[in-house]
Amino acid sequence: MSKKGIFIPIEVSARHLHLSAAHYNKLFGEKAKMHLLRPVSQPGQFVTRETVAISTKKGSFSQVRIVGPCRPQTQFELTKTDARSLGIDPPLKRSGLVPQQGETLILKGPQGLVRLRGGAIIAQRHIHASTQDARKYGLKKNKIVRIEVSGERGGVFENVIVRVHPKFKWAFHLDTDEANAFGISGNTKGRLL
Amino acid sequence: MSKKGIFIPIEVSARHLHLSAAHYNKLFGEKAKMHLLRPVSQPGQFVTRETVAISTKKGSFSQVRIVGPCRPQTQFELTKTDARSLGIDPPLKRSGLVPQQGETLILKGPQGLVRLRGGAIIAQRHIHASTQDARKYGLKKNKIVRIEVSGERGGVFENVIVRVHPKFKWAFHLDTDEANAFGISGNTKGRLL
Repeated sequence: MSKKGIFIPIEVSARHLHLSAAHYNKLFGEKAKMHLLRPVSQPGQFVTRETVAISTKKGSFSQVRIVGPCRPQTQFELTKTDARSLGIDPPLKRSGLVPQQGETLILKGPQGLVRLRGGAIIAQRHIHASTQDARKYGLKKNKIVRIEVSGERGGVFENVIVRVHPKFKWAFHLDTDEANAFGISGNTKGRLL
Repeated sequence: MSKKGIFIPIEVSARHLHLSAAHYNKLFGEKAKMHLLRPVSQPGQFVTRETVAISTKKGSFSQVRIVGPCRPQTQFELTKTDARSLGIDPPLKRSGLVPQQGETLILKGPQGLVRLRGGAIIAQRHIHASTQDARKYGLKKNKIVRIEVSGERGGVFENVIVRVHPKFKWAFHLDTDEANAFGISGNTKGRLL
């Protein structure tokens, strides 16, 4: 099948935090639950009403969104622009790969503090594909592809990694730096090259 | 000549302000001069020791760099990320093309205020080429080219405009959003496609 016509809806991630259950309870209280603010596009995931303040010696963000449910490890996904304002230099990684080394972040919730060492990443550009869509478009898990975005600030994103899961929704994920650099907003689609 | 081997040093512009002489004097005083902090790469241009606070109803930057010397018209060049934090939506334009419409910015200096309407732009990606380099590489003024940047966040920038002037220094100019989105720092070069 020609890839000429394969367009993928673009979704833009702003900085957000995934929390372990232990850290969630430390920040929000022993028996605290997460409260849904709105679902995000990947099934079962949601933004919580709760937010966390994250700070370093150099800077801070007062209301960082949490994406639930809880995960095995706490991870802060941020942009390079965010990282500069915090004075940190996190690695580029796939969401879910949590570096154990790195600068210390202070997470502050209404009930407590967490000192997190090395949990920050800049997320690698990626495609979410369901097992079915991956088969349909000839994409394999962890394959690296290129995506073109048109427009007055258009171009090509290289090194886009394919992630496959039965429940994933077809989407091309960028962070706000990447979206801003390419003038992406609203219902933009990327073309698989 | 093959373009395979044409590499252009990348230079990254953070938000900055060009001021008319009238506005400079209003902000810094009737007889105030500009004081050099450091030269920038394009000959005759420099960052001043003086800075300006710029604000909108929604946000502000306390110490915006001025790039001198004075120009016929005041212009604020910022990133899309900056624009979002100020709550404004400036057009993408070539530096020097000043929109007369747009949201109002308040510029504040030690001696006065300027209310600026419509002077903000997001700068279009561009190449600076001397007349000699333009001839050498077969580039014409206002031609649109594509530039590839390699690396783990690499890709291709399209819609790059060529600017030619006898005094220009060979450089590919991006803003901080574009540089952050592509993981560009230090001595990176782009390849003309």
